[in-house]
Amino acid sequence: MRPKIYLFGDSITEVSFADGGWAASLSNHFSRTVDVVLKGHSGYNTRWALKVAERIFPPVGSGGAPALAVTVFFGANDACLSDRYAAFQHVPLHEFKQNLNSLISFFKKRWPETVILLITPPPIDEDARLRHPYMENPSGLPERTNEAAGAYAQACISVAKECGCPVLDLWTKIQEFPDWKEVLMACTLLRLATGIVFEEVVKILKEQGLSPENLPTEAPLFSDIDPEDPLKAFEGY
Amino acid sequence: MRPKIYLFGDSITEVSFADGGWAASLSNHFSRTVDVVLKGHSGYNTRWALKVAERIFPPVGSGGAPALAVTVFFGANDACLSDRYAAFQHVPLHEFKQNLNSLISFFKKRWPETVILLITPPPIDEDARLRHPYMENPSGLPERTNEAAGAYAQACISVAKECGCPVLDLWTKIQEFPDWKEVLMACTLLRLATGIVFEEVVKILKEQGLSPENLPTEAPLFSDIDPEDPLKAFEGY
Repeated sequence: MRPKIYLFGDSITEVSFADGGWAASLSNHFSRTVDVVLKGHSGYNTRWALKVAERIFPPVGSGGAPALAVTVFFGANDACLSDRYAAFQHVPLHEFKQNLNSLISFFKKRWPETVILLITPPPIDEDARLRHPYMENPSGLPERTNEAAGAYAQACISVAKECGCPVLDLWTKIQEFPDWKEVLMACTLLRLATGIVFEEVVKILKEQGLSPENLPTEAPLFSDIDPEDPLKAFEGY
Repeated sequence: MRPKIYLFGDSITEVSFADGGWAASLSNHFSRTVDVVLKGHSGYNTRWALKVAERIFPPVGSGGAPALAVTVFFGANDACLSDRYAAFQHVPLHEFKQNLNSLISFFKKRWPETVILLITPPPIDEDARLRHPYMENPSGLPERTNEAAGAYAQACISVAKECGCPVLDLWTKIQEFPDWKEVLMACTLLRLATGIVFEEVVKILKEQGLSPENLPTEAPLFSDIDPEDPLKAFEGY
């Protein structure tokens, strides 16, 4: 069996196979040696991630496959401000650290030899958040700030150091580029993928009954999560 | 366990996660429902594919995972002309059909419920083959022709029909575009993937000892296959 690299995270992970995405590049890089497997969950914070981890990554004896590595890339949603429109995604800083610790413990127990690579949330372009809100936002205030994202990035780094895990400080790395706001948009924007083969394969698979809309989702979709009662969608997990 | 879609093929499959590639788009399309798993082997023909299929796709009881679908995308190398520089990749048309039949039988036995989607080889831009040879070519003649690729595409279609499998006639589909030679180049050209996250993740994984050059390859690389004795690299499979 070819070894795997799992990519566990939020929307930045979920869209990472979109045109020019980083996971696609990673798959290409390891194309002959590793299966790169996407486990991205748009809108998730670490609290919700902990709810689904057990099911997403079954024990090796129960059909699960051990991993060479897993990227743990959360925090962007945890860092939503607690008094803005996305407050239902907010996770307090101390709980964020606890949750990251719990995720690391889970993976270390599941796969003792696996590299657990933490990735900090990226910086926030607050103007862009206002230009492209994902919910109605009459307040005129962004739902997340760069300062808050930086605090969660620092927390992520400190947890990684405590646990002896490698960490990618994306918050700092991106801001080293003078034009980072444009770079960030290019990294996270969900561009609709096109191409002859893609469209044709999708069409034929759909004819065979295989399309995303008639396959069960592994974990609740962001659209299935009630902002008023987010944990409800996870009952039974 | 999340179901899988396997992509089994030659270099057009192997590079399909490169920037803008079709497998990346497919992964993105199914990002919440299916693991799209790359099994691309640059330079392979159907004869070699048959040699490695058993190991690449282990039985479900032995750690292998059943698939929702598998794309079988060979023929471009089989169609290399038998009297040109890439003759060692050539597989006669009647054997190509037999081999496709054998691959379909293998998958049907392995996973009785799985959709087996055949994809024909693409058309050949003969001028481009001369401009970009992958081996020394003093003959001034292309190692493959569009006519030959068309014959293999027709054979692929007839096998698919005999076996009741869906088929994507890529040879015809691409040529419906007036500017297909440019489209083809855009589809198959291996563009080096870039991007901040990709480069950083690769760097850190490499620091952890995880990089393609120190991981075993699942099946022989094209560079490991001796044009004089291609089957030698497959001894032990």
